Amino acid sequence: MLGYAFMGKAHSNAFRKIAYMTWPPPLMPRLVAIAGRNEEAVRGAAERYGYERWTTDWHDIVSDPGITLFDNGGPNAVHAEPTIAAAQAGKHVVCEKPLGRDADESYEIWKAVAATGVKHLCAFNYRFVPAVRLARELIDAGELGEIRHFRGRYLQDWGDDPSLDTWRFHADEAGSGALGDLGAHVVDLARYLVGDLASVSALVKTFLPDRQVDDAIEAAVEFENGAVGTIESTRLALGRRNAFQWEINGSKGSLAFDMERLNELEVFRNGGRTRGFTRVLVSEADHPFWEFWWPPGHIIGWGDTFVNELHHLLRAIADDSEVAPHGATFEDGYRAAEVCDAIVRSGESGKREQLSYRS
Amino acid sequence: MLGYAFMGKAHSNAFRKIAYMTWPPPLMPRLVAIAGRNEEAVRGAAERYGYERWTTDWHDIVSDPGITLFDNGGPNAVHAEPTIAAAQAGKHVVCEKPLGRDADESYEIWKAVAATGVKHLCAFNYRFVPAVRLARELIDAGELGEIRHFRGRYLQDWGDDPSLDTWRFHADEAGSGALGDLGAHVVDLARYLVGDLASVSALVKTFLPDRQVDDAIEAAVEFENGAVGTIESTRLALGRRNAFQWEINGSKGSLAFDMERLNELEVFRNGGRTRGFTRVLVSEADHPFWEFWWPPGHIIGWGDTFVNELHHLLRAIADDSEVAPHGATFEDGYRAAEVCDAIVRSGESGKREQLSYRS
Amino acid sequence: MLGYAFMGKAHSNAFRKIAYMTWPPPLMPRLVAIAGRNEEAVRGAAERYGYERWTTDWHDIVSDPGITLFDNGGPNAVHAEPTIAAAQAGKHVVCEKPLGRDADESYEIWKAVAATGVKHLCAFNYRFVPAVRLARELIDAGELGEIRHFRGRYLQDWGDDPSLDTWRFHADEAGSGALGDLGAHVVDLARYLVGDLASVSALVKTFLPDRQVDDAIEAAVEFENGAVGTIESTRLALGRRNAFQWEINGSKGSLAFDMERLNELEVFRNGGRTRGFTRVLVSEADHPFWEFWWPPGHIIGWGDTFVNELHHLLRAIADDSEVAPHGATFEDGYRAAEVCDAIVRSGESGKREQLSYRS
Amino acid sequence: MLGYAFMGKAHSNAFRKIAYMTWPPPLMPRLVAIAGRNEEAVRGAAERYGYERWTTDWHDIVSDPGITLFDNGGPNAVHAEPTIAAAQAGKHVVCEKPLGRDADESYEIWKAVAATGVKHLCAFNYRFVPAVRLARELIDAGELGEIRHFRGRYLQDWGDDPSLDTWRFHADEAGSGALGDLGAHVVDLARYLVGDLASVSALVKTFLPDRQVDDAIEAAVEFENGAVGTIESTRLALGRRNAFQWEINGSKGSLAFDMERLNELEVFRNGGRTRGFTRVLVSEADHPFWEFWWPPGHIIGWGDTFVNELHHLLRAIADDSEVAPHGATFEDGYRAAEVCDAIVRSGESGKREQLSYRS
Repeated sequence: MLGYAFMGKAHSNAFRKIAYMTWPPPLMPRLVAIAGRNEEAVRGAAERYGYERWTTDWHDIVSDPGITLFDNGGPNAVHAEPTIAAAQAGKHVVCEKPLGRDADESYEIWKAVAATGVKHLCAFNYRFVPAVRLARELIDAGELGEIRHFRGRYLQDWGDDPSLDTWRFHADEAGSGALGDLGAHVVDLARYLVGDLASVSALVKTFLPDRQVDDAIEAAVEFENGAVGTIESTRLALGRRNAFQWEINGSKGSLAFDMERLNELEVFRNGGRTRGFTRVLVSEADHPFWEFWWPPGHIIGWGDTFVNELHHLLRAIADDSEVAPHGATFEDGYRAAEVCDAIVRSGESGKREQLSYRS
Repeated sequence: MLGYAFMGKAHSNAFRKIAYMTWPPPLMPRLVAIAGRNEEAVRGAAERYGYERWTTDWHDIVSDPGITLFDNGGPNAVHAEPTIAAAQAGKHVVCEKPLGRDADESYEIWKAVAATGVKHLCAFNYRFVPAVRLARELIDAGELGEIRHFRGRYLQDWGDDPSLDTWRFHADEAGSGALGDLGAHVVDLARYLVGDLASVSALVKTFLPDRQVDDAIEAAVEFENGAVGTIESTRLALGRRNAFQWEINGSKGSLAFDMERLNELEVFRNGGRTRGFTRVLVSEADHPFWEFWWPPGHIIGWGDTFVNELHHLLRAIADDSEVAPHGATFEDGYRAAEVCDAIVRSGESGKREQLSYRS
Repeated sequence: MLGYAFMGKAHSNAFRKIAYMTWPPPLMPRLVAIAGRNEEAVRGAAERYGYERWTTDWHDIVSDPGITLFDNGGPNAVHAEPTIAAAQAGKHVVCEKPLGRDADESYEIWKAVAATGVKHLCAFNYRFVPAVRLARELIDAGELGEIRHFRGRYLQDWGDDPSLDTWRFHADEAGSGALGDLGAHVVDLARYLVGDLASVSALVKTFLPDRQVDDAIEAAVEFENGAVGTIESTRLALGRRNAFQWEINGSKGSLAFDMERLNELEVFRNGGRTRGFTRVLVSEADHPFWEFWWPPGHIIGWGDTFVNELHHLLRAIADDSEVAPHGATFEDGYRAAEVCDAIVRSGESGKREQLSYRS
Repeated sequence: MLGYAFMGKAHSNAFRKIAYMTWPPPLMPRLVAIAGRNEEAVRGAAERYGYERWTTDWHDIVSDPGITLFDNGGPNAVHAEPTIAAAQAGKHVVCEKPLGRDADESYEIWKAVAATGVKHLCAFNYRFVPAVRLARELIDAGELGEIRHFRGRYLQDWGDDPSLDTWRFHADEAGSGALGDLGAHVVDLARYLVGDLASVSALVKTFLPDRQVDDAIEAAVEFENGAVGTIESTRLALGRRNAFQWEINGSKGSLAFDMERLNELEVFRNGGRTRGFTRVLVSEADHPFWEFWWPPGHIIGWGDTFVNELHHLLRAIADDSEVAPHGATFEDGYRAAEVCDAIVRSGESGKREQLSYRS
């Protein structure tokens, strides 16, 4: 594990829970080592989460032949080098999103890692919310018909404070602001649920005078399959704490979702006099991932989505099965970055930017 | 009254209800005459709604000196000529939205009518939803602080039927599709609540092969005051029947609204441990327009918003007071049309279109 | 019309709207006369609502052979005598709920009026909310299976003020407090949707020291068909303005409703992976009463339910058809009063009170 | 640990997560031994959850001096003997609810355990939902004023299947049906939030012909402090999967809650024009238990409430502080059982049953 803060906690918790919540686990996680820059902090994290050892130099992890999976939960600026090194050392790799700070860096990571043949997962964990997987399954089964619209927005509100200073506000460390932090999630689910994007017509906005990165992005988008819609993200939507909301309209039905109520999926399908949006509590025995959890109606939390996600990766490693399509690969990470870059370009050029993807 | 269909019913009902729901009314409405092309239909409408006479030629109304208010509820293509003629004959005028089929026609109507000195109201009735007026009052009072975001979408779903054939699908009669029909409402409330728009980056989409007008529009927008957001409208969002939804985020609070629950306004303001969005049932004695209606909690319907609207116009006529800012004037109708035209241009050019308004 | 206050306004508005919203109306309402005790007020009401004349003595109305329908919207204490007199004079009668101040008075009204052969409607208007009628139709069609539970509560909050003084707080004029005012509505819909009650185990509570009538009632109830549940009403539920909420659970489905969102019905039926409560916006062409109203999704208000109700009565008069089962007859008014009396008795005795109904 | 099924999983998960989610934990949990009747199952559970050893005889655990905390997650019929034995062996004890199968058994357990001086917790885990604790804190701070109403219902729907056969349907093993399983939770939160009950007027209903235990209970209740309301529980409310819903009305405000959205608390307090119920997402740094979890808006799941609960117990053991008032002691378990017994008695007698509590 690289990183001991927010994502370090989320991933460590997931590995520990996989050991008994998903039974039997595909592979039994062993928390070998954790790396981080601050010695006191990384030592504390090792003790807390039960890593066998800690280091302030990630090379120690990469060079350890006893480690088979490298999980990069560090800031965006340290995604590329350690992840590539770990893959080249033969370790399977997980990397937090966004994969790189821009499309070029993301492409480099993807190609370098893919060349090694290891499994790679870009940690777009929201694909592993049961309601999101159910949405995908409904769409795959044709229950929505032809998709006409996707409107997705990821709204948070903690950014409206000029005194805040984390790596997330430093252009060199983060690459971008609300775009890479939140917008990348919207782009990924748009791709996962609807398909690849064809163009973006976008604005990029920074409200606070001395902020280095964007506070919000707004985009009108087209998909390759003809669907149209909007993509937004902002850290300045007061009252929205983790409101990743999306809606999809198809020729046979619609879906709506809000991460603040992540156990629910709103589903509309044509019907008779009692048609309307159905609030599905996605917690039944026949719902995705629910074999790991509780009796129906006993909801899971945000942290539990990482259990679903990393279990998927362990299964892929154990069975040598594909991470795709349900897990985001580094190619998915790269493609999301292409869209994010196009949003930036469109914001600057004032033009609709067509998307093309490198292979 | 010109027109006996949907809007004819809505406006006639309003004039009849003003007579006793708003007591005493500023002016007592007298339903003198109704005009329409189909003789049998217009005769039936006159009998039904209680007009003293009917005609198949709107000139009969315009030339009647006993009529002081001309209400144009006809299709978009017959907005300009009768409305201008009525104003030039000294009658106050109401005209359904969109004012004209494009900005040029809207500008012509506005300037011609304004020159006569009569009162003019472009019937953007949603300004007269109590929750919308309350929103405006909260914003005017500074309770939201500086506005950062507006996201508005007007979603309906009746358009997904190739066999439909009304004037609303004929380019020459309607001017546009979801844009003028629904998008114009979004633009008007955006302007009413946030201010004038500065630019749009938009897509215009027609899904059905032989349809002459747009089925959907998607736009990323900037306001003159620096706020950014999205504007969308579509007639192909299955399950959304009249979902005019908007959200506004400011530096001190947020508002959210859905026309399908038009008696409610969601309000967020900073606070302590019990902060969150408050569902305000806008039906209290101290809420806008509520002196006309029922005890608290006894909600009003969509049709009742026209009572509020036309009462406002009668008050302006009776007192010779301004229709603006709460009523939409023909200038507001024109400005909305400029934004709609810019959306069309942006859709074609693939460029961000800056807005400029004629005076 | 007897009464010019809250219910006078609601009923007068309905008669005026029936004339053109329900087209053609079964009978064309003519507002002949209105009676009330306060001369100035009743004169004003006559002018406002368009009654041809007014009187301070209801006998003037009862003796007028030109009047065919007598609508009693006065306080509970003046329900019996004028209503009976009007029926005996051959007029059809509408009487506001509760029919009498207790079961004895209600029985007397019912029997005296029924003996005359006129049409009689006890104005439980909530049967004429489209969502409530739809609920009844779903239950009648067996879509809920065997009914297991009814839980109904009518919550308001305006009663928590010792200085309030209306007839509604005077025991002799009102008969009871939250029980007859709100609880009677719950009892009526329980009967309309589930069937007659078999027993009640109840509490009657007055919170304010000097109040003559109850502030709240709480009851555990059994129905003749074996269903069980609760019935509550209170005027001291802060934040609930007109929250008449009920839920029904059957062996095949469930329904839930809230009067503050009267255009919506929540429907659950067994299904596959997307089962859940469906929010049905009851505003479609194939929904009850919707032929009178607007396009789908354009909601109606509380006042509009009276249009649906009184239209039903006019239809029954015009066609000599039955008011029952969808309209509440005076027998329904009497039966609701029996349940209310049993609640009072149970509150006093501390025992489960079995119900029996006089024929 | 005694028991390896539903509650065994929930408690074991909690002990494992306490070790790193609550940092530093008051005591570091060590999972020493697990007991259960089925050898294969208990061996599997020991391996899965990481217990050092397993046994089919709970006496082995009680007699182990290395164990300081005994957690009884077994069926109701095995609550008394092992729990008392463990306490008498000097171990702190947790026992699942209901404490005993009736008030007598519960009283016996309480008194026997209390006499030993160990810490005892009756596992009413819903007290440890952050929203519930926040509700208690608001009430304690007087923000709701004098409490007038409590209406609580715990609705599930899995019981409508005659073929189901678990210990929960056997009268000798479970004691009661929906009453002890679900109703006891309602009674406990009623007591925790409002205070002790004074009387119940109740029905007990079994719908399925051959079922030994109740399917539903319905009660009108009075509290010692004068509040009144209803308590219901059922396993036959189709569509309600884990709907523990309650509402409290006070003279200054109201609260509403639904366990299916356990991260939210609806709060109403008097205010100005924007009054209404506020949806509080109980996930802020200043909210109860949130120091253990994630950034604001990143919700927790049902299973996480056990972490909060058992952390509280470990803190009480570590600091020798009181389990009460926030944790339910065995006295609380006994008092809830008195109320449940009174509901049964009232169902049989048809009378309002006054409550008295043994000391």
